[in-house]
Amino acid sequence: MVVVMAPGATEADINGVVSLVETAGGDAFVSRGVERTIIGLVGDVQQFGSLNLRSLRGVSDVIRISAPYKLVSRENHAERSIVRVGGVPVGPGTMTLIAGPCAVETPDQTLQAAQMAQAAGATLLRGGAFKPRTSPYAFQGLGEAGLRILADVRDETGMPVVTEVVDAADVELVASYADMLQIGTRNAQNFALLQAAGESGKPVMLKRGMNGTIEEWLMAAEYIAQRGNLDIVLCERGIRTFEKATRNTLDISAVPVAQRLSHLPVIVDPSHSGGHRDLVLPLTRAAIAVGADGVIIDVHPHPETALCDGPQALVNGDLRELAKVVRALPPLVGRTLTEAPDAVPDGVPA
Amino acid sequence: MVVVMAPGATEADINGVVSLVETAGGDAFVSRGVERTIIGLVGDVQQFGSLNLRSLRGVSDVIRISAPYKLVSRENHAERSIVRVGGVPVGPGTMTLIAGPCAVETPDQTLQAAQMAQAAGATLLRGGAFKPRTSPYAFQGLGEAGLRILADVRDETGMPVVTEVVDAADVELVASYADMLQIGTRNAQNFALLQAAGESGKPVMLKRGMNGTIEEWLMAAEYIAQRGNLDIVLCERGIRTFEKATRNTLDISAVPVAQRLSHLPVIVDPSHSGGHRDLVLPLTRAAIAVGADGVIIDVHPHPETALCDGPQALVNGDLRELAKVVRALPPLVGRTLTEAPDAVPDGVPA
Amino acid sequence: MVVVMAPGATEADINGVVSLVETAGGDAFVSRGVERTIIGLVGDVQQFGSLNLRSLRGVSDVIRISAPYKLVSRENHAERSIVRVGGVPVGPGTMTLIAGPCAVETPDQTLQAAQMAQAAGATLLRGGAFKPRTSPYAFQGLGEAGLRILADVRDETGMPVVTEVVDAADVELVASYADMLQIGTRNAQNFALLQAAGESGKPVMLKRGMNGTIEEWLMAAEYIAQRGNLDIVLCERGIRTFEKATRNTLDISAVPVAQRLSHLPVIVDPSHSGGHRDLVLPLTRAAIAVGADGVIIDVHPHPETALCDGPQALVNGDLRELAKVVRALPPLVGRTLTEAPDAVPDGVPA
Amino acid sequence: MVVVMAPGATEADINGVVSLVETAGGDAFVSRGVERTIIGLVGDVQQFGSLNLRSLRGVSDVIRISAPYKLVSRENHAERSIVRVGGVPVGPGTMTLIAGPCAVETPDQTLQAAQMAQAAGATLLRGGAFKPRTSPYAFQGLGEAGLRILADVRDETGMPVVTEVVDAADVELVASYADMLQIGTRNAQNFALLQAAGESGKPVMLKRGMNGTIEEWLMAAEYIAQRGNLDIVLCERGIRTFEKATRNTLDISAVPVAQRLSHLPVIVDPSHSGGHRDLVLPLTRAAIAVGADGVIIDVHPHPETALCDGPQALVNGDLRELAKVVRALPPLVGRTLTEAPDAVPDGVPA
Repeated sequence: MVVVMAPGATEADINGVVSLVETAGGDAFVSRGVERTIIGLVGDVQQFGSLNLRSLRGVSDVIRISAPYKLVSRENHAERSIVRVGGVPVGPGTMTLIAGPCAVETPDQTLQAAQMAQAAGATLLRGGAFKPRTSPYAFQGLGEAGLRILADVRDETGMPVVTEVVDAADVELVASYADMLQIGTRNAQNFALLQAAGESGKPVMLKRGMNGTIEEWLMAAEYIAQRGNLDIVLCERGIRTFEKATRNTLDISAVPVAQRLSHLPVIVDPSHSGGHRDLVLPLTRAAIAVGADGVIIDVHPHPETALCDGPQALVNGDLRELAKVVRALPPLVGRTLTEAPDAVPDGVPA
Repeated sequence: MVVVMAPGATEADINGVVSLVETAGGDAFVSRGVERTIIGLVGDVQQFGSLNLRSLRGVSDVIRISAPYKLVSRENHAERSIVRVGGVPVGPGTMTLIAGPCAVETPDQTLQAAQMAQAAGATLLRGGAFKPRTSPYAFQGLGEAGLRILADVRDETGMPVVTEVVDAADVELVASYADMLQIGTRNAQNFALLQAAGESGKPVMLKRGMNGTIEEWLMAAEYIAQRGNLDIVLCERGIRTFEKATRNTLDISAVPVAQRLSHLPVIVDPSHSGGHRDLVLPLTRAAIAVGADGVIIDVHPHPETALCDGPQALVNGDLRELAKVVRALPPLVGRTLTEAPDAVPDGVPA
Repeated sequence: MVVVMAPGATEADINGVVSLVETAGGDAFVSRGVERTIIGLVGDVQQFGSLNLRSLRGVSDVIRISAPYKLVSRENHAERSIVRVGGVPVGPGTMTLIAGPCAVETPDQTLQAAQMAQAAGATLLRGGAFKPRTSPYAFQGLGEAGLRILADVRDETGMPVVTEVVDAADVELVASYADMLQIGTRNAQNFALLQAAGESGKPVMLKRGMNGTIEEWLMAAEYIAQRGNLDIVLCERGIRTFEKATRNTLDISAVPVAQRLSHLPVIVDPSHSGGHRDLVLPLTRAAIAVGADGVIIDVHPHPETALCDGPQALVNGDLRELAKVVRALPPLVGRTLTEAPDAVPDGVPA
Repeated sequence: MVVVMAPGATEADINGVVSLVETAGGDAFVSRGVERTIIGLVGDVQQFGSLNLRSLRGVSDVIRISAPYKLVSRENHAERSIVRVGGVPVGPGTMTLIAGPCAVETPDQTLQAAQMAQAAGATLLRGGAFKPRTSPYAFQGLGEAGLRILADVRDETGMPVVTEVVDAADVELVASYADMLQIGTRNAQNFALLQAAGESGKPVMLKRGMNGTIEEWLMAAEYIAQRGNLDIVLCERGIRTFEKATRNTLDISAVPVAQRLSHLPVIVDPSHSGGHRDLVLPLTRAAIAVGADGVIIDVHPHPETALCDGPQALVNGDLRELAKVVRALPPLVGRTLTEAPDAVPDGVPA
C-alpha cells in the first residue's frame, strides 16, 4: 500500500500517517520528492484498510498493491487447479464442453437436448430449473420438478448436471440434485448465496457479473472459498458496454487475465454473451483458441418454441460443426476434448 | 410490437408470421416497403413474447413498443405517488432528507450521527446493520444487534429507520425493526429478495443496479409491486462507467426520466455516487435542483475511524451548509423540506 | 511515480530499476515489504516515462502519481480563471448562458433564435456552420455562408459568437468570424485541430470526448495551452454509457471534479447530453446548482423543421421558464447571471 | 421507418404524420392497436429523417429500420471483398499478418522489426511516423523522416507499408510514401480526415473508435467510400469499458458482426487492445479462430527502450510461437496465411 501525500502536506501530516501505521503494527517508508511525498506501507493490508488513511489531513491518495483475494489467487497457489464435476475434469490439459437447454421445460425436451449435446462431445449437462428473469411476467423455471427431470436425464445419459441456484434458501435443495451449482451473473454479488454455495459441498460455476470487474469476480470466488469450497469454475459470459449489436460484449481477454491471477479454471459462455445463434460457433472457436478450460452452450431441439433465450440456442444443424470445432481446436492449444469418465455404471453414456 | 422482415423474406415467411400471431389471438398488419416489409402486431404483448418470433424464417428483428412494466408505470397511474415511511412523506411537493451513518457501529456513534442528521433537517434515519461488501474480509455489519441500536435511536430521536436487507431469509427479521427496507445496488436483480420485500408489508427503497438500465430498475420495482407492495421509493446512486475520477457516475438525468416513466418517488444518493466528501454537497444541490423527491446522505461523527465508507461521510463542519441547502433550494422547484410528522410527541415514533 | 516489483523479483531486478532511474538523473527509494518491494521515484516524471520501466524484469506495475498536465492544472495556478469572450466573462462569480440554434440554416432562423436566446438571458450566441455528422448523408452545415450569417446576427444583437471548427485547415477561416472556437466531442483527441486552435488567438470551448476521461479532457486542453492559449472553457456534454434512455449520460460530477483539478471554467451542455427537450430545463437547473460556470443550450424558432437535433431544442414556450431558472438559481451558489458587457453601443460587439 | 404514437395520440395527430409523410412522397401504413397506434413508412428514409417526425404532436418514438450505410453494406454487395495492399490481399480465404514497430524510431530499429515480422510470416509492414498521443509532452513521431525510413525498409524487405495519418492536411504526403493509410481510433469520427483518405487513391485501414458502435464504425467507412474509395479494411482494436485489467476490451464478437453487416475485410489488433505482451498471442489465436481476415501486431527489437507502447510489443522470443500460430490456425477456419505476392523479385515491391 502506498500513501500519496498532497502537494501542500506538512511534516505533521506526514508524521500523522507514519505514526498511525506504526501504531497499527506496520512499517512506513517515507520518500520525499520535489513535488510530493509518498509513503510506502509494509504489513497487514487488511488492517491498514480499516485505518481510513484516505481521510487523514494531507493525504491525496491511497494506492493498494497486493491482490485483495488470497485463497483463489495464484500468488499463493501457483499451479492451475482442476475441478472435478461428477468425475468430469475441468481445468488445464482438457477442454470441457458443457451443453444443454437454457431452461428445463419437459422431460422430452431435456432428454433430446442432452442427447444432442452428448453427440456433439459434451460431458456435462446444463439446464435451468430456477431462472432469474428481468421481468416478473416471464417464465421463471419449473423449480424442483425441473431438478427431478435433470436427475432423470442424468440417469439416462450419464451426464453430470450443472444447474443454477438463485436464492441462498434453495442451495440445499438444488445441491441434493445437482452435480455442480451455477451462480448467475445477476447474483455475482449476492453474498448470502455465495456463502451458502461455499457450504454446499458441491462444485460451483461462478458467472462473472455483467458489470463486474475481474477483481470483483475473484472476490466473489473468495467468498465461496472462504467457506471451505475451492471447487470453483469461473465463467466469462460477457459484460455490459455501450455496444448494442450483441447482447453483451464477450470479454475474451478476461480468460488469460483471470488464469494469470487465479488458479481456478476459466470457461466461456458464447451463447449468452453473443445472444445470437450465428455468433455461437465463432465465439466458441475464439474461446478455445484463447485458452479457455471449457465452454458452456445452449442447445435446444426446437428453439422456435423455447420458453427462454430461443434465439441463441444451437439446433441440430449446427451441432455437426460444433462437434468438429471442439475436437479440432483444443490440440492446437495443448488440450484435448474432455472424455466422459469411464467409471460411470448404470446409465452409461454413449 | 413490430416485426421487421429481412430483405429477402418471401410471402410464405410473411404469412408464417401473420398466422402465428393470429393463432395466438393477435392481429397483424403488414406494411410492404420497397426494401423491407414490416408487420405491426396488436394484442397481448406478453403472449407474443413467448412466440419466439425472432426465430422464424425471414424475420430480421422484433421491436417491442409498450413498456414491459405495468404496476409501476405512469401509463396506468398518471399521478405521481407519495410513499409514507413511519408517517414521513416521500414524493411530489416535498424534498425529504434521509441521513445517518453508512454502517451502525456503536450506540453512541449511531445516536450522534442521527442527531447530526436531524439538526441538518433529516426526518428519516439511515444506517446499515447488514452490509454487502465486495471483500469477505471487510466488516459485514452488526446484524440484529445493529437493528436493535437503530430501534433505540429511533425511540430517542423520533426518526423512522431505513436499513438494508441483503438476503430474502432476513426480510422478516429486518422488517420487524425497520420502517423501510433498503435493497442495495448489488441486489438490484436478486429476485428472491425483491419478492420477499414485496411481501414484507414495509415500504422499500430500491437502489438502482450500478449496471442497471432505467428499464431494468423499473422491472425490479415491478417484482416488488407484483407481490402487492406499491410503497416503493427508487434511489439513483450512480452507474458504472469508464470514468474513474468518481466512484460511480451519478446519472442525474435518471431522476426526471424515471419520474416520467413511473409514478414512484425518486431520490438520489450523492454519497455513494461520488464516493468523496467534497462532492456530496454539490451533488445534493444538483439532485434537489433536478427535481428529486429526496436525498440520502452518509454522516458520521468521526469518519476517520468509520468501519465503512468513511471518505464520503459528511462531518459536523459540513452540516451547517447542508442544512442551508436543503432549505433554500427546494422552494425553487416547487417543494418544501419535509418536516417531521406532527403526531410525534416527545420523540416517540408513530 | 511508484514501481511495484513482482513477488518473485530478485535483488538484481531491484537494483536494475534503481540504477536505470539514477542514470536518468532521478532518485529511487526502495521499500522492502513482506510480500513485495516497492520503489518510489523522485525526479522528472516525463523522463521516467521514456524509460519503459514496465518492461524491466521483475517489475509488476508502475503507478504514476503527479498530474500529467501542467499548464491547465490547479496545482500551479490555484485561482480559478475567467475567460472573456468578446467581452463576456465565463468563470467564477458569474453564470453565463450561451444559446442559439444547433445549426445555422437561414439568416431569419438564426436571428430569431438569437433574439429568443437573448430574451432568456443569453449573452453569447452559439450556432454551427460546420457540423460533424455521423452520416455522410446528413446535413453538414452551410460552411462560410453560415459564418457570415452568424457575424451579421452578432452585428444585429451584439452577442459574441461561439461556433464549431472541425478541421485544422479551417481554423483560420473560422477564427476570422468567430469570437470563440468550439471543438466538438468527436474531435476531443484530434490533436492537429487542438494545436491549430491553440495558435488561433481566439478563446476555445473544448467539449469533453463522449468516451473521454476527465484526465484525457484536461490533456486535450493542455495541447491547446501548450501552443500559448490559456483562454479555454471546458464543456461537459455527456458520456457514453450502457444507458439508452438518454442520448448520453450527463456526468454532472465532472463539473466539481474538473474545477478542482483545473483552473479553467467548466460549463455544461444540457441539450446534447439529454437529447430531449423535456430534460433541458431539469438538467440546466442541476448544472447551475452543481456550480457550473455556464450552460450552453439549443434554441430554435421552429424545431419541427430543424435540420439538426430538433428534438432537443427549446422553443418559445420553454424560454420563459429558462429565463426564470438562470436568474433565480445562480445566487444560491454565489453567482449572478452574466450581463452583456456595457460597452455595446448600437448593437456593435466590443 | 416506424412511427410509434403516444397512448393519448388523437386521430388528428395520426393524420398529421400521415399527411407529412405523403407530402414528402412516402407511403404511411397505420396500424391501430388497443394501446397504441403505429405507422409504418415506406419510401426514401433519408428524406423522412429531415421531417423531424419525432417533434410532431402525439409522436412517442421513431424507429429506423434500414441500415444507414449503403456502399459498405452487405445488403447491396453480398460477396465479401478482398482489398489489395501493394499486391498483398486482405480478405476471405486468407489470413494476413501485418506487423512492425508501433513507432518508427531509427532505420536500424525499423529494419530489424520488419525482418522479425517477416520471419514470423508478416507480408505487410506497420510502423508509425505520425503518432497521436494523449499527452503533448509524449513522443509524437518522426514525421516525414519516419516515412522515408519506412520506404527504405520496404525497398529492403519487399513489404508494403501501412502507416497512420492524423491530419487531413498530411494525407497527400503520407499517401506519397505509404501503400495503405491507417486512421486511428482517436480519429474515427474526424470526418475531414476520412474524406481526405477517401480521395487519396490508397487503401485505408480504419480502426474502430474506442467508443464507437459497430454502426458508427461502418458510417465512418461510408465517409471514405462516398469519396470513391472502397479499398477499406476495418480493424477492431478494443473498446473502452469499465474493466481496467486490460488497456481496452477487445470486442471479439465485432469481427463476425461487422463481416455480416459489411462486405469489407475485418482484422484485429491484439497489441493495442490488450496492452500487454502476455495477451498478444492468446488474443491473436482468438482473432484467427473467430474468423478475422488478418491481425496487426506490434514487434520491437528492444521494447525496453521503445519510445511508444513498449509493454505490448512482441520480442524475438515470442515470434517463433507467433509464426506457428499464424500457420496452424487459419486452415481450421478455411483460410491460409497470406504469402508475399509472387511478383516480388529480389525483395523489390511491385
